[in-house]
Amino acid sequence: MVPDRNHEDVPTAPDTQTQRPLITLTSDFNTPYPAAMKGVLATRTDARLIDVAHDFPPQDVRTAAFWLREILPYFPPAVHLAVVDPGVGTDRRALVLRAGDHTLVGPDNGLLLPAGRRLAADRELEAFAIDPEAISTPVPHGARAGAGSHTFDGRDLFAPAAALVAQTDTDIDSLVADGTLEAVPLETLVDCSFPEPQVGDNGETATGVVLVIDGFGNVITNIPGQFLAGRYGTRAHVNGESVPVARSYAHVAESSRLLTVGSHGFAELAVNGGRGDVAFDVAVGETVTLTFE
Amino acid sequence: MVPDRNHEDVPTAPDTQTQRPLITLTSDFNTPYPAAMKGVLATRTDARLIDVAHDFPPQDVRTAAFWLREILPYFPPAVHLAVVDPGVGTDRRALVLRAGDHTLVGPDNGLLLPAGRRLAADRELEAFAIDPEAISTPVPHGARAGAGSHTFDGRDLFAPAAALVAQTDTDIDSLVADGTLEAVPLETLVDCSFPEPQVGDNGETATGVVLVIDGFGNVITNIPGQFLAGRYGTRAHVNGESVPVARSYAHVAESSRLLTVGSHGFAELAVNGGRGDVAFDVAVGETVTLTFE
Amino acid sequence: MVPDRNHEDVPTAPDTQTQRPLITLTSDFNTPYPAAMKGVLATRTDARLIDVAHDFPPQDVRTAAFWLREILPYFPPAVHLAVVDPGVGTDRRALVLRAGDHTLVGPDNGLLLPAGRRLAADRELEAFAIDPEAISTPVPHGARAGAGSHTFDGRDLFAPAAALVAQTDTDIDSLVADGTLEAVPLETLVDCSFPEPQVGDNGETATGVVLVIDGFGNVITNIPGQFLAGRYGTRAHVNGESVPVARSYAHVAESSRLLTVGSHGFAELAVNGGRGDVAFDVAVGETVTLTFE
Repeated sequence: MVPDRNHEDVPTAPDTQTQRPLITLTSDFNTPYPAAMKGVLATRTDARLIDVAHDFPPQDVRTAAFWLREILPYFPPAVHLAVVDPGVGTDRRALVLRAGDHTLVGPDNGLLLPAGRRLAADRELEAFAIDPEAISTPVPHGARAGAGSHTFDGRDLFAPAAALVAQTDTDIDSLVADGTLEAVPLETLVDCSFPEPQVGDNGETATGVVLVIDGFGNVITNIPGQFLAGRYGTRAHVNGESVPVARSYAHVAESSRLLTVGSHGFAELAVNGGRGDVAFDVAVGETVTLTFE
Repeated sequence: MVPDRNHEDVPTAPDTQTQRPLITLTSDFNTPYPAAMKGVLATRTDARLIDVAHDFPPQDVRTAAFWLREILPYFPPAVHLAVVDPGVGTDRRALVLRAGDHTLVGPDNGLLLPAGRRLAADRELEAFAIDPEAISTPVPHGARAGAGSHTFDGRDLFAPAAALVAQTDTDIDSLVADGTLEAVPLETLVDCSFPEPQVGDNGETATGVVLVIDGFGNVITNIPGQFLAGRYGTRAHVNGESVPVARSYAHVAESSRLLTVGSHGFAELAVNGGRGDVAFDVAVGETVTLTFE
Repeated sequence: MVPDRNHEDVPTAPDTQTQRPLITLTSDFNTPYPAAMKGVLATRTDARLIDVAHDFPPQDVRTAAFWLREILPYFPPAVHLAVVDPGVGTDRRALVLRAGDHTLVGPDNGLLLPAGRRLAADRELEAFAIDPEAISTPVPHGARAGAGSHTFDGRDLFAPAAALVAQTDTDIDSLVADGTLEAVPLETLVDCSFPEPQVGDNGETATGVVLVIDGFGNVITNIPGQFLAGRYGTRAHVNGESVPVARSYAHVAESSRLLTVGSHGFAELAVNGGRGDVAFDVAVGETVTLTFE
């Protein structure tokens, strides 16, 4: 078995000297648009603000959904404001998801669901549509008259909604009672799912796809890390080419390729001190087949 | 009329459980220089710190001034520390602007004025020169002897000044009384203004320029959004080419061009899921003419 | 003498209305990996979090070590979590350094030592190895079974250790007493040193190397700024070419080259409004010779 450091024991409960709520922020806005959202948040709540990322690929709901699913589970209970929103200004719904002790706020385009399911774990995931009319749109200082815009709901709708959820101590029920939120069936939401890998019956072959490539060039597949359990120090064929299976990058020579278990628990193609995407010549969505020798 | 969601009502007053001041930071420093400013601030004040952006184009006072004017009005009362400072180390003045409940700190090169005027709204905008001799320059741990430098006033002058303003609860008058600040006439400040568009008497033609291009490639002009009021669903000529006028990006087909009202209330050239600057082949400062068909 | 604004007097003691600890974060992770570390930290401590940088060159311990040494001394006492860690997953040690009132946490690969020595100043620098078995590894919500990974100690080991140090009020001794930390001799640590420049006996010639190039393209050498003391307004030969020695960038014409004292006290090659690395055609590690005319 792969040594399983991730599951030793539950982390120490936080010593919360402060009762300030926490809001995380995620978008494809780069700068300076996230600052407008933070200004709105700071106007309405004293919540702590922590950025997940604002440089996700423009309009790429799927990549952001993947990372939200992988990163948010490391946070304590929080309101997670996430806006990758190619449908801004249309009638796509604005959502609040209650996922156990976590709350997600963002557009109904699949962005939130993968993270919501994981954060809910064995508790019920519940979805609520935000009534835009019930949300107090920010009025900037020295506002220009008549300059109505429908292109930045992150600032005008989602940030105010996230602030409201945070300031009401995530009391979703009261927001339903006053009409700000309306419960909607989960099955009516736009979904985002990631393909399942195929693992051969003998456990010697797995076929998956590249889900994302990270900033180091590490190629993250959808093949579970368990597939490599007990294999460190052996070799596998990756799309037909022989590559060492290693515990981590520096277990192979500088600039050499390896197959490892990445930090999110998936089989990962990498290069020690280099870029796996270049060395393996693969891109997001392409097939990866692993076979033990 | 364009539906005017931005002006429904005044936002809810913040439920400030904390009385910590707020400092925003803006620069063209990228990393890691802003962290030196934050270290200085954290040494001298317990203010909350929120970044606006640190990746504005190097030395481009004008672009940063535009964004400060558009983004800062979404913040609650705060001290806004902004440093795009090609004249660092010269005798250009260091400024504090009092703009209503907001305070701006930065160089006298036009960077602060557009935002200051907007934040002041119908209150008086007041300018003060900082006496550098009255500011306690940071001494880092383990400082090298005799390594006097005049190239980083963000760290050595403006951050200490911003901390001082924040810690005195923005009591500018006391800082004038003790000689740290000196009132200076507004008309002596280096200004930064943006060109005014020309709108034809019949309201059918407007000529403006490109003010900035954002990270998505959206082309932000100086033509006010009101010019497009009631025109969604029609078409306009943009520099002679026919383009749909749309409420938002996804109201046109994927990869198609559109003319819309951007999030700051200006007419904006965009592409649904693509880059407007590329599709319209325009750059900052170039002319944009809009004519209704 | 160069006017020495950096050493006027000690900065005002902070008016700490809050007793929350401070943790700085530094890495080569870009986004969104630092957010996973912040989630772990926020789960275990209410410390303030301030980023130094997360875009250092991948695996480049040396460049990150330089910047940590130059930036961290501007911070008040804090726990500094720094992870540029090409040896992740190997048996390289995990360290805590006690440097005066500062504490550093990161891998034993030279990353922390230059900053640690400077932060300790005239106090003893002490090193401690972290027992990974004593650290409670984060268990994310909805964790996948058996997905053991050894590729992200920033999240799984260093962030928990930094949180522990912060929450115990940096009481290193108690962490030694309970076996979490073990004192180790400084001389057993992997070191990182920067070359010393050679300054001629007559003070007219200095030969050094390029340590780093910053985001503006400024070329930071290891030649101390004192070498330029009293020379502003004169000229020097830089690798044989005549260049003005100037107090700051704008003291030469737009797009012109200059030699100045950079913000960390080293001789710096720059261009007013441009990139020094391009204009001087030098790269990190290359030799720079300065000779007064």
